[in-house]
Amino acid sequence: MDKYRVKPGAKVRLSRIDPNDKGDFKGDKKEGRELVGKLNKELEALQEVLYASQKAKVLIVLQAMDTGGKDGVIRSVFEGVNPEGVTVAAFKVPSPAELAHDYLWRVHQVVPAKGQMTIFNRSHYEDVLVVRVHNLAPPEVWGRRFEQINAFEKLLAEEGTTILKFFLHIDKDEQKKRLEARLADPAKHWKFALGDLKERALWDDYMAAYTDVLEKTSTPWAPWYIVPANRKWYRDLVISSVLVKALKDLKLSYPENKDDLSKVVVV
Amino acid sequence: MDKYRVKPGAKVRLSRIDPNDKGDFKGDKKEGRELVGKLNKELEALQEVLYASQKAKVLIVLQAMDTGGKDGVIRSVFEGVNPEGVTVAAFKVPSPAELAHDYLWRVHQVVPAKGQMTIFNRSHYEDVLVVRVHNLAPPEVWGRRFEQINAFEKLLAEEGTTILKFFLHIDKDEQKKRLEARLADPAKHWKFALGDLKERALWDDYMAAYTDVLEKTSTPWAPWYIVPANRKWYRDLVISSVLVKALKDLKLSYPENKDDLSKVVVV
Repeated sequence: MDKYRVKPGAKVRLSRIDPNDKGDFKGDKKEGRELVGKLNKELEALQEVLYASQKAKVLIVLQAMDTGGKDGVIRSVFEGVNPEGVTVAAFKVPSPAELAHDYLWRVHQVVPAKGQMTIFNRSHYEDVLVVRVHNLAPPEVWGRRFEQINAFEKLLAEEGTTILKFFLHIDKDEQKKRLEARLADPAKHWKFALGDLKERALWDDYMAAYTDVLEKTSTPWAPWYIVPANRKWYRDLVISSVLVKALKDLKLSYPENKDDLSKVVVV
Repeated sequence: MDKYRVKPGAKVRLSRIDPNDKGDFKGDKKEGRELVGKLNKELEALQEVLYASQKAKVLIVLQAMDTGGKDGVIRSVFEGVNPEGVTVAAFKVPSPAELAHDYLWRVHQVVPAKGQMTIFNRSHYEDVLVVRVHNLAPPEVWGRRFEQINAFEKLLAEEGTTILKFFLHIDKDEQKKRLEARLADPAKHWKFALGDLKERALWDDYMAAYTDVLEKTSTPWAPWYIVPANRKWYRDLVISSVLVKALKDLKLSYPENKDDLSKVVVV
């Protein structure tokens, strides 16, 4: 899955990256889903050790255009993992109190503690995406944020956080299909916001903004992965694989007991 | 399952409540586990509606003696539920900053927001349990907390929170078995703290303290359930059933879209 990682300093051409790609995977959807299921069991076990060992911290950032599948990833990749060790932080439109602080203030408050895995559903990257596309701050303000974000993430990494960032890459046609599917199903109408269509009209501006994000903030300590996401099962497979590998690489183990338990009797 | 609910003002005799009870349930462990699995699917669907409708808030309080099964409940009852809508708040020994505030300060910060379900793994009840048993505060201080807690929970309930409190009732023999099982399995040694044995020696004091909690703080707006918990599967069955019923009683539905979507075209 390493080929989806954005090498630091590399040029990114999103239009040349196929959102339908399924890499070297020869199987179909059914086989893909089965593999995601197996990885989910592995993730469950690895998370238990992460939680028990109280050493590492894991931060997962999910970014995508509307309908890109952030909620779907949370459901499919993390379902079954003990909710005690997984926290989801969803970043909505900032509140007045949040706006009265710097944009990383609310983010810093919810980074993972030792033993924790935290998923960001949207993130501080909105401050160089929606903020840029809608001119909510002038270019000199959002322009300096790439370096600020790299420094912030470096702090987290140096203090023991494993950071994995995923851009769920769908194309404009796929978004059309997904929005139409929501319109066609009254049970999904609550998910449909007319504002989503206005954002869709800004697709190219968003792609330009995402390109800058991917080129400027994929670092050795906090890499971005561009995940082909038109196929939901393959999207889940990529993320599960990257996550399981990263957790295995931490080589965590259940902690030893400091006390000699050999002569303990329970009365 | 209503028989496990503590009626407000009722006397509680924990020694007369059988922790091995399996009520009217005629099935065995296997059938019980299957039923818990079905309830888990129901809970998953109900939680999605809770999250979508953004109206109700659900607070689940878990209290038990060591090895009582709080973590087990979180894993079995809530696994499979979308982690985006479920938060676990674990209350450990208070930090200096927390001790510098009133004991409900840290609790209030993590109560569920609209659409959220929050599980308290231990809770503000420790402030009338461990605090009392270990004389960490004088009786006049912890003694007034029952009324304070009732008032606090009434506030939460009146502001839209459904509160369900579960005391996982095991007996001293069952705890002995579970502690011995941890001692016998090196993979579980990390979970074993010698301090647990000191707490065990104070069993009767804890039962007296729990009795007061159950008698004084089971209210119409925040009832306690005494859950027979020697059999893990039956414990999970009781909690799943109570929770699913409470969520159904909220009669939540997916929200309507305020906009007329009938003529929307995605371009």
